[in-house]
Amino acid sequence: MSQERLEALRQALAEQQVQGFLTPRCDEYQNEYVPGSDERLAWLTGFTGSAGLAATAGERSALFVDGRYTLQAAQQIGSQPIEQQSLTPVDITNWLCEALREGDTLGYDPRLHTEPGLAPLKKRFDECGIHLRALDANPIDSIWKDRPATPSGAARPHPLAFTGEESTSKRQRIAEMLAAKKQDALWLANPEVCAWLFNIRGSDIPHLPVALSMGFLYRDGSATLYLAESATSDALRQHLGRDVEIVSDKASLFVAAERQHVQKVWADPLLTNCWTLHELRNREMQILLERDPITVAKARKNTVELEGSRAAHIRDGAALCEFLAELPGAVGSENFGELEAVDLLRSKREQREGFTDDSFDSISGYRGNGAIVHYRVTQESSLPMHAEGIYLIDSGGQYPDGTTDVTRTVALGDFPEQAKGQFTRVLKGHIALATLRFPKGTCGEQIDAFARKSLWDVGLDYAHGTGHGVGSFLSVHEGPQRIGKATTNVALEPGMIVSNEPGFYLTGEYGIRIENLIFITESQNYPGFLEFDALTLVPIERQLIDPALLSDSELGWLNDYHKKVQETLSPLVNEQTRAWLVAATAPLARA
Amino acid sequence: MSQERLEALRQALAEQQVQGFLTPRCDEYQNEYVPGSDERLAWLTGFTGSAGLAATAGERSALFVDGRYTLQAAQQIGSQPIEQQSLTPVDITNWLCEALREGDTLGYDPRLHTEPGLAPLKKRFDECGIHLRALDANPIDSIWKDRPATPSGAARPHPLAFTGEESTSKRQRIAEMLAAKKQDALWLANPEVCAWLFNIRGSDIPHLPVALSMGFLYRDGSATLYLAESATSDALRQHLGRDVEIVSDKASLFVAAERQHVQKVWADPLLTNCWTLHELRNREMQILLERDPITVAKARKNTVELEGSRAAHIRDGAALCEFLAELPGAVGSENFGELEAVDLLRSKREQREGFTDDSFDSISGYRGNGAIVHYRVTQESSLPMHAEGIYLIDSGGQYPDGTTDVTRTVALGDFPEQAKGQFTRVLKGHIALATLRFPKGTCGEQIDAFARKSLWDVGLDYAHGTGHGVGSFLSVHEGPQRIGKATTNVALEPGMIVSNEPGFYLTGEYGIRIENLIFITESQNYPGFLEFDALTLVPIERQLIDPALLSDSELGWLNDYHKKVQETLSPLVNEQTRAWLVAATAPLARA
Repeated sequence: MSQERLEALRQALAEQQVQGFLTPRCDEYQNEYVPGSDERLAWLTGFTGSAGLAATAGERSALFVDGRYTLQAAQQIGSQPIEQQSLTPVDITNWLCEALREGDTLGYDPRLHTEPGLAPLKKRFDECGIHLRALDANPIDSIWKDRPATPSGAARPHPLAFTGEESTSKRQRIAEMLAAKKQDALWLANPEVCAWLFNIRGSDIPHLPVALSMGFLYRDGSATLYLAESATSDALRQHLGRDVEIVSDKASLFVAAERQHVQKVWADPLLTNCWTLHELRNREMQILLERDPITVAKARKNTVELEGSRAAHIRDGAALCEFLAELPGAVGSENFGELEAVDLLRSKREQREGFTDDSFDSISGYRGNGAIVHYRVTQESSLPMHAEGIYLIDSGGQYPDGTTDVTRTVALGDFPEQAKGQFTRVLKGHIALATLRFPKGTCGEQIDAFARKSLWDVGLDYAHGTGHGVGSFLSVHEGPQRIGKATTNVALEPGMIVSNEPGFYLTGEYGIRIENLIFITESQNYPGFLEFDALTLVPIERQLIDPALLSDSELGWLNDYHKKVQETLSPLVNEQTRAWLVAATAPLARA
Repeated sequence: MSQERLEALRQALAEQQVQGFLTPRCDEYQNEYVPGSDERLAWLTGFTGSAGLAATAGERSALFVDGRYTLQAAQQIGSQPIEQQSLTPVDITNWLCEALREGDTLGYDPRLHTEPGLAPLKKRFDECGIHLRALDANPIDSIWKDRPATPSGAARPHPLAFTGEESTSKRQRIAEMLAAKKQDALWLANPEVCAWLFNIRGSDIPHLPVALSMGFLYRDGSATLYLAESATSDALRQHLGRDVEIVSDKASLFVAAERQHVQKVWADPLLTNCWTLHELRNREMQILLERDPITVAKARKNTVELEGSRAAHIRDGAALCEFLAELPGAVGSENFGELEAVDLLRSKREQREGFTDDSFDSISGYRGNGAIVHYRVTQESSLPMHAEGIYLIDSGGQYPDGTTDVTRTVALGDFPEQAKGQFTRVLKGHIALATLRFPKGTCGEQIDAFARKSLWDVGLDYAHGTGHGVGSFLSVHEGPQRIGKATTNVALEPGMIVSNEPGFYLTGEYGIRIENLIFITESQNYPGFLEFDALTLVPIERQLIDPALLSDSELGWLNDYHKKVQETLSPLVNEQTRAWLVAATAPLARA
């Protein structure tokens, strides 16, 4: 089947007189989650992972994926004539320079790429005499006959009770930053930025409650916003007010900016696609390529957002506890596996007020599947579950007052004895981060190792980051802050929410991860210092803890946390779960 | 006096038709320590700190220094008409753009600047219409009548017994890296690089046992080396062999490279001055601007160098113990102060085999002077010392088998009670780093916080890095590795020596710092993991330790360390010190 698609693509490329084409897994907003209409990579190659790039060059084709997806990509490519490669700038440029000849032209869709993303390629191509050309239309779209329509659902006002700050106030704050940088306008590159700035939400993208949108904010706090015709309504127009002009095609954004006499535009190089930069330059607008100030403003949650997150986490914790309380009974019954566990958990969340969607596809990994860090259960992969071994569930919900993300690892019965020490070391890492006090100005990469030290002590580690930012009824993965080995140079600031999720994985056997969301607060007793506070409230599996490995203060933290979980959630759960909670949160002591 | 010098400089600038000039504190090798002939900044302004920049522009002059030198600079400037500013690219460019007018030209000595160093200035000047011009001759040199001659002492072969690898082998290794990068030559930018590559040492620079030198290494392992006429000898020529051509003026280096048909040159942008780059470009040589491979090769010590360092640290530790043992008696006597302490310590080191020089100016800080992180005692500042309060001594020696750097903080009698908790927390940080196990690939910035956590726990911190690299009978400050908050992206590798020096400073009262040199080894039990091993052997002040704050394992580390110190040094010290060692290393226990 795909052989035909590749052939059709080659013909389309020949018509546009280019010898190759790039198909990244992304949309024009550089979203992590993309609507079905932008799943061009999956349509072309069959590969459904969340990151990847296909390249067609002359007679050859390749799919570039990262380490998470090596096995999955191989399976999904199957017998198609597609070479599998590693998703690194060096490998991509090397492959293309080999597959193309001097004088050839590689086409790309300028809406799906950023300039920093293309820079390494452009540099090598200049050396090799290969040309890069932005194509007016994406050739895939002309051959993908049953391509879904671009979503254009309603954009809804997001109430002040959840946002804690009027859009006018946000726009004024950001406009002042524009003035300080002597810029006339800020390019609003994607729906997340628009959702925060205008206090609107939607349902165009799986797991991400936004309406497809982009726009300009001007120096006086007024704005032009692109939204599909069908996304707007009188209520929305009233919410946005007279200072926000709505346009229903993207080209009109630039016309509007010209009418506003915009000459200097601030645009985030990592968020802004090449097409937009081209449109700006065509109008001789000067561009300041710096990080979008909304990214940081959005990451610093205000009191209302933090209180909302607390409330959402309580309801979400109650749902997860009901799931965990029923799990031991469920795993005995026939036809209960990883997929059914996801359904059960979803049904529990759906009973909770305000639940709109999972915040990402749940990772439901029994035994060896739990060791696959980015595992997504399918009909084919779903393992039946029994009253033995270790099970890892990483999931989250979208609620209007907050976004959740939590991982728990539980023992369904007997388990390998060594897992206890490993689980306890992961817990020690989790506690080390949760209880850390650190000076203002500290970046995530400077404290990441505290979550790893107890594993390092015995020569173990985990191959993923320790924490990512989380939005307020927005993306479950949000920047700019991050806790991991990689350099961010971004200071952790009061109000930022991050995950705390150390883990340990024994390939083919089991996976262990303990994840709470935590947020950053000013220290009450030590000026200039910051601390974390936990949002997630769900018991941590007592059966997997070896108290002998915990210090007095670690044991104290655990028992205090469990006491809080039990007291907070008991009134909110069914009777079976209430009894389960008592046992699951009983104080632990050393023998 | 300096008023005259500034006036003379302005006249010299007028003759060269420039309106301003930069005087950095550095020499053409970008050395940290510079010979007297390059102390232009001190001559012009009176400021003697180790980092700084003077700018003369029109009628105004400014001295730019960092936070360490704010007070010292103000004192040393005195009543001269020199504005004091902060040593940051932003402040320097702002000041110059204000002091100069559009169309003006700022002169600079291209030997004293690197291109990355000038880049921020050049960018702003382009915007402001100010010109930058490299001057053929440094105008200071024409007006500094009694300027010392450039040193040109003998370069001596450094024996294989200390280096562990012949120069031919080193040259072959590096030449292979040149070939892999398709380069014809490597620019050897400074005396440290040459000293390591050719196994030579000298005595041209205070504290840094090198001969002033630069050169080219070619792809076949041969080389051209600049050394002053008086620096060479038959013994040296024999040591270097026929593959190393010696030239006695720098211009001949480039002639030699042309004769070798060099077209592609690898040069480190941070080490190579603008004059050199200009000479290369004048000859139409292509330049690869990447980190010099010798920097990393030099940092990874071989077994012979590590064994040498161990031996040097034992002799150095014995000297420091004799000093510490005599200190209580000395502080009682008249006329004994910080300066006399330095002299006493120096006399102890001078009795030890192979001692050639201090590895830096000792920091001898009694009471409040100990809180000045980069304090250098002078006749004016030297405090008389008595049998009370806290004293900090940070010093090191140059020995042919190794370079040392050690800090101890001692109680000379009664001291403020709170210092005990702070000292113990600094010790806990020191032990946390010393005992850390970490995976290969880990960078210093990822583990720095372990040395700070016990201070962070009570809202304290220190405003300096935790560890710097150290050379083998070379500079006491050596890259590329570093343990600190700042990003290095340099992995710690087996064989690298770093300092471990957390501290705490109470302004005006006292300073606390505990510094050992440690080196990195492969873990014997955990493949893929690295550990530290201590080189420095000197007791840690027991009177300042509160055992109640130490865990069992921390107490165990301390008592083990002290046992090793006592066993190793006892046979090497005088009788008084032997008795002192017994008490100073007696096991500590919790009450």
